[in-house]
Formats: sequence, C-alpha cells, structure tokens
Amino acid sequence: MPEFFTSHHEKIQIELQRIINRSPLALYSMLRYHMGWQDEHGRPQYDKLGKFARSTICLLSCEAVGGNAVQIVPAAAALELVHNFSLLHDDIEDASGQRRKKPTVWKLWGQSQAINAGDAMFSLVYLALLGLRENGIADRQIIHSYQILSETCIELCEGQYLDLAYEDHFNITVEDYLGMIAKKTAALIAASSSLGAYLGTEDEEIVNRFRQFGKELGLAYQIRDDILGIWGIEESTGKSVESDIAQRKKTLPVIYGLQNSKSADREMLEKLYSQESIKGDDLVKVLRILNQSGARDYAQRLAEQYHHRALAQLEATGLAVSRQAPLRQIARFLLEREY
Amino acid sequence: MPEFFTSHHEKIQIELQRIINRSPLALYSMLRYHMGWQDEHGRPQYDKLGKFARSTICLLSCEAVGGNAVQIVPAAAALELVHNFSLLHDDIEDASGQRRKKPTVWKLWGQSQAINAGDAMFSLVYLALLGLRENGIADRQIIHSYQILSETCIELCEGQYLDLAYEDHFNITVEDYLGMIAKKTAALIAASSSLGAYLGTEDEEIVNRFRQFGKELGLAYQIRDDILGIWGIEESTGKSVESDIAQRKKTLPVIYGLQNSKSADREMLEKLYSQESIKGDDLVKVLRILNQSGARDYAQRLAEQYHHRALAQLEATGLAVSRQAPLRQIARFLLEREY
Repeated sequence: MPEFFTSHHEKIQIELQRIINRSPLALYSMLRYHMGWQDEHGRPQYDKLGKFARSTICLLSCEAVGGNAVQIVPAAAALELVHNFSLLHDDIEDASGQRRKKPTVWKLWGQSQAINAGDAMFSLVYLALLGLRENGIADRQIIHSYQILSETCIELCEGQYLDLAYEDHFNITVEDYLGMIAKKTAALIAASSSLGAYLGTEDEEIVNRFRQFGKELGLAYQIRDDILGIWGIEESTGKSVESDIAQRKKTLPVIYGLQNSKSADREMLEKLYSQESIKGDDLVKVLRILNQSGARDYAQRLAEQYHHRALAQLEATGLAVSRQAPLRQIARFLLEREY
Repeated sequence: MPEFFTSHHEKIQIELQRIINRSPLALYSMLRYHMGWQDEHGRPQYDKLGKFARSTICLLSCEAVGGNAVQIVPAAAALELVHNFSLLHDDIEDASGQRRKKPTVWKLWGQSQAINAGDAMFSLVYLALLGLRENGIADRQIIHSYQILSETCIELCEGQYLDLAYEDHFNITVEDYLGMIAKKTAALIAASSSLGAYLGTEDEEIVNRFRQFGKELGLAYQIRDDILGIWGIEESTGKSVESDIAQRKKTLPVIYGLQNSKSADREMLEKLYSQESIKGDDLVKVLRILNQSGARDYAQRLAEQYHHRALAQLEATGLAVSRQAPLRQIARFLLEREY
C-alpha cells in the first residue's frame, strides 16, 4: 500500500481502539475480533490492517482544503465504524461465512449475538463523533457532521434494501444497479470526502466538489470490487476466486452478462442463478458466459470512467495540484488494486 | 389508558410519521407495518396505538420541570425510534414470530430485510433529533441529547448481549439479572425522563433525579413485564399465556424459581429449560414449580419496591405535587397494567 495511504493509519487505529476498548464486557471482544485485533479466544493478534479507505479519504480531504487532520480524527473513526457495522450485518444478511480468510462474527458467536454486535458498533459511531468537541470543533459543525452521517446511514440501508430485493429478480438494469451501489457504497465514500472537507473549510462549493469526488470514486471502487469478486486473486481477497458467483451475487458483470448474452446463454445464466448456490462445473459455465459477453471489459471501462469523473471533480475545486495529489493517488490505487 | 397518558400521543404519532414516511421506497413499508400503520400489503390500517411509554415519559418530564413539550417532540420521537429499532432486532434474535397478535417483520420479509429494516429505524433516530434545531433548541443542548441517546444505545446493546449470553446458563443470580435489565430496559426509560427534563431545565440536580426516577421505574416496568409474560392474559398481550416459558426466557420469576426451589424441582426446571422449547405438559410443570417457589409474589414485591423508589426520586426534586402528578400516575399505570 502506498505510503500516503498509510500515513494516517496509526492515529485512526488508536482512536478506534480508544472507542472500542471502552469496557471489559465480552460484547466488545466480538468487535475487536471483527477489527482484526484479537483472535476468537481473545488473544491479541496483529492482522495486516484493513485499508481504512474511508477514514483515510476523510483525513486527506481535510488536509487538501487546508484543515488539520489530527483535529478531526474522531470523524474519520466514526466513518470506519459505520463501514464495519455494515460489514457485520451484511455478513449475516448475505450468509457470508468468511471475511479476510477468517470466520465471520456470526459464524463464531451465532446470528443473534452478531446482530447485536453490529448494533453496538453502530451505536459507537455517534459516540465517536462527540470526540470532535474535545478537539475544539464548533457545536454547529458537529451537528452538521451528525446530519451528514445519519443521512448517509439511511442511504446505506436503502442501498442494502435494494441489493437484497434485487436478489430474486433477473430484470435488473445497469441503471438500477448503479442506483443501488450509489447508495450502498458510494454514499459512505462521498460522506468521507465531504465530511473531511467540510471540517477543514467553510467553502460550500469546495465541499460539494469533494462530495461529488467521493461519489464518483465510490462507484469506481464498487465496480472494481465486483470485478475482483469474480476475477480476483484468491490469495489477496481471502475468499475463493468465484465467491461472488458461488453466492449468486448479481454484481455489475452478471447484470451486464444477463442483458448482453445470446438467448441460450441468458437462459442458462438465469437457470444457474436460480439455484440455492452455484458450485463446481456451474461456476465454470457462469464464467464462460460472462467472459463471452464482454462483461469484464465493460465493467473495467465503466470503473475507469467514474475514476476520471472523480478526478475532474477534484480538479474543479481549483486547489493546487500538490494538494490534490494524495487523493489522486488514492483514487488510482483503489482502481488498480488487486484485492 | 388514562387520559394524561394519551394527551401527547397525537403529536408523537405525527412526528414519527413525518420521519418514517420520508420516501416511497418499499423499505419504509416494513417500518410502517412494524409501527402498526399499514398491513403487510401496504393498506393503511389503524391499530390501537402502542403505549408510547418512553416518548410520553419524555414529554411529561419536560412539562414537569416547566419546559415546553411541543418544542421537544423530536427527542420524544427519537426515543420511540430507538425502542422500535430494538424490537425489530430483538424479534429476530429471540426468534419471536408474533408481536401484537401479528407476524413480526422478519416472519414476513425474512431475516435479512428485517435486520436492515432495524438498521434503517436506528438511522432515523439520529435524523429525528435534528428536528430539535428547527424547534429552536440550542446547539449545545442538541449535542448533549446526542450524547445521552448514544450512550443509552450502547447500554441497550450491552444489556442485550448479557440477555443472550444468559440463555445458556443456569447459575444467573437475581443481581446478574437486575444488572442486565438495568441496561436492556431501564436505561432507555431513564434516558426518556432525563432527556425530557434536561431539555426543560438547566438544573442538573433535578435532571439527575429524573434520570434516577426513570431508572427505578424502568426496573419496575420490566419486572411487571416478566410477570405478565408468564401469568398475563393472552387477550391483552397478543401472545400465548406462557409465551415467555415456551420461549424458555429466563426472566426474573424463573431465576428466582431456580434459586429457591427444592433440589428435585430445580433439577426439573433445569431439564425443562435445557430443551429447544417448552411445550404442552412441560409448560404446566414449569408453572407449578414457579408457583410453589413463590416467584410471582417475590417479583411483584420487587416491582413495587422499585416503584416506590421511583416515586421517592420524583419527590426529592422538590417540584410541586401537581407537577409530579402525571408522572406518578404513569408510574402507577405501568405497574398495574395487565398487558
């Protein structure tokens, strides 16, 4: 991972630990396990850290507009908590048994405790934001931060609602899909860049550009994720190569494939995606149809388009090129990553 | 229901509808169904309203200290949203198929959508609080309200964690149990009375008394609920008489029964509560053992003790008796209710 990406990791990590290690109650062990800080028996462990993409984008956006990243670390931590709360619940909702090569929280502690652990993580989001006050951020700005975050959380839930609802349909268009990931993924990345910028400058025009930057970047990010979920390298994602296919997730390449295959292939895809799960030879069949439809190239081109649009928003802020550089590099990193 | 109890219902209902009816997305239909405003097909219906206990206590507490209830309705709505978010998730965690004589949200829409619907309800809590700003509440007070609510949500999750963890144990003491319900139930009622009082007066001493009042009242309320869950009337609770037994919930009477029965009875109780569920003749056996142990009288006496302690806190505020009256009446109503 590039150095500018990890430059803020330590402060984010320390803040997250301060928030999550608030009590000896075993509830928090589940959260620490999910964060990769301890194993299932409570023994400390040091996983390779997550990307902290959202919190890092928040802090770099703040610095880009001339703000002080150290002062707004609580907001960055809050964004990371939103992301992790949603992962805890998504893993249950998608029946995903593994995350980062390890059993998911619900696999180890059961669904009920895992739902509740997600709720606890969600509750910590709003406690985390209060840290802004100790750091001298004005009350008015803190309330606006609450507004940004809670509107974003509602969008996440709307996106997740659509994602679950789409599971049982085959007539989802690319537009439907993009509308769904705009809420499910891009909204939180847009919140990250705009919250960071907002806490660093009073210039509304610039904050709006940062929100757009995050939104476009978020779309590119999710589409890249979809590509990796099908054609990614097992080693780096920690899940089996065809995992998104095995779980019959209707990600962009599948939706494109459904709409752009000859009728025999389309019927076959529908049949395969109507099963409880997709296994063995059927995985190979799906891959063959997707490859023939040109779904991978289509998705990669679309991701690149959103990437360019994101950069255009950044440019339109009129900030010095050197100030834009770290965010441009992150954007490229997220688009080119192999995991 | 006594009139002073329902006096604020309409404003609370209108505010909740304003918050929940924010979008035509079908996600919100699940929330409306849960609130009893429409049936599962989206047709409007008018269930007998819930008790709105928490929001009403909030508004009456505000009025008791001389505040303006109308101004703080968004806080009352936020409390009701917290309660309903927790019901949505508790129903999944406890595998409860019915609530208020109707199928629960997860029964109709599946677990995944129901988890997400609960998350949406939770997200709305924090949006709801922003309404305080439009009503002229100071930023400083809004931030403190966020603090009270988010600390309360964390307590709820800690309480729920303990409740789930206790399911598999037989050596839970009455003290363990009271510590659990203090978090799971009493914390939100304490938040209701203290938030209402806080938004109505700057007097910290009085706000503290109101918090204590809510906490003691919450304990009395939960214990009364435990009694009704075993000996309640089917008609009014909308669930079968022995529902808490059938679901092997280890509520106060059961914990007391386990600790205060002769060894043969205790062994029998442990055996019955080790089953997946308790049915038919076994229900009768459990009831017999609980009745012989004196669990019902014990629980009722304890509820009355907490009730008296709650009233003592109210008295200690030094407010005029007429100002205390509505809250005293609510406390009595909650203790004497049959549903």
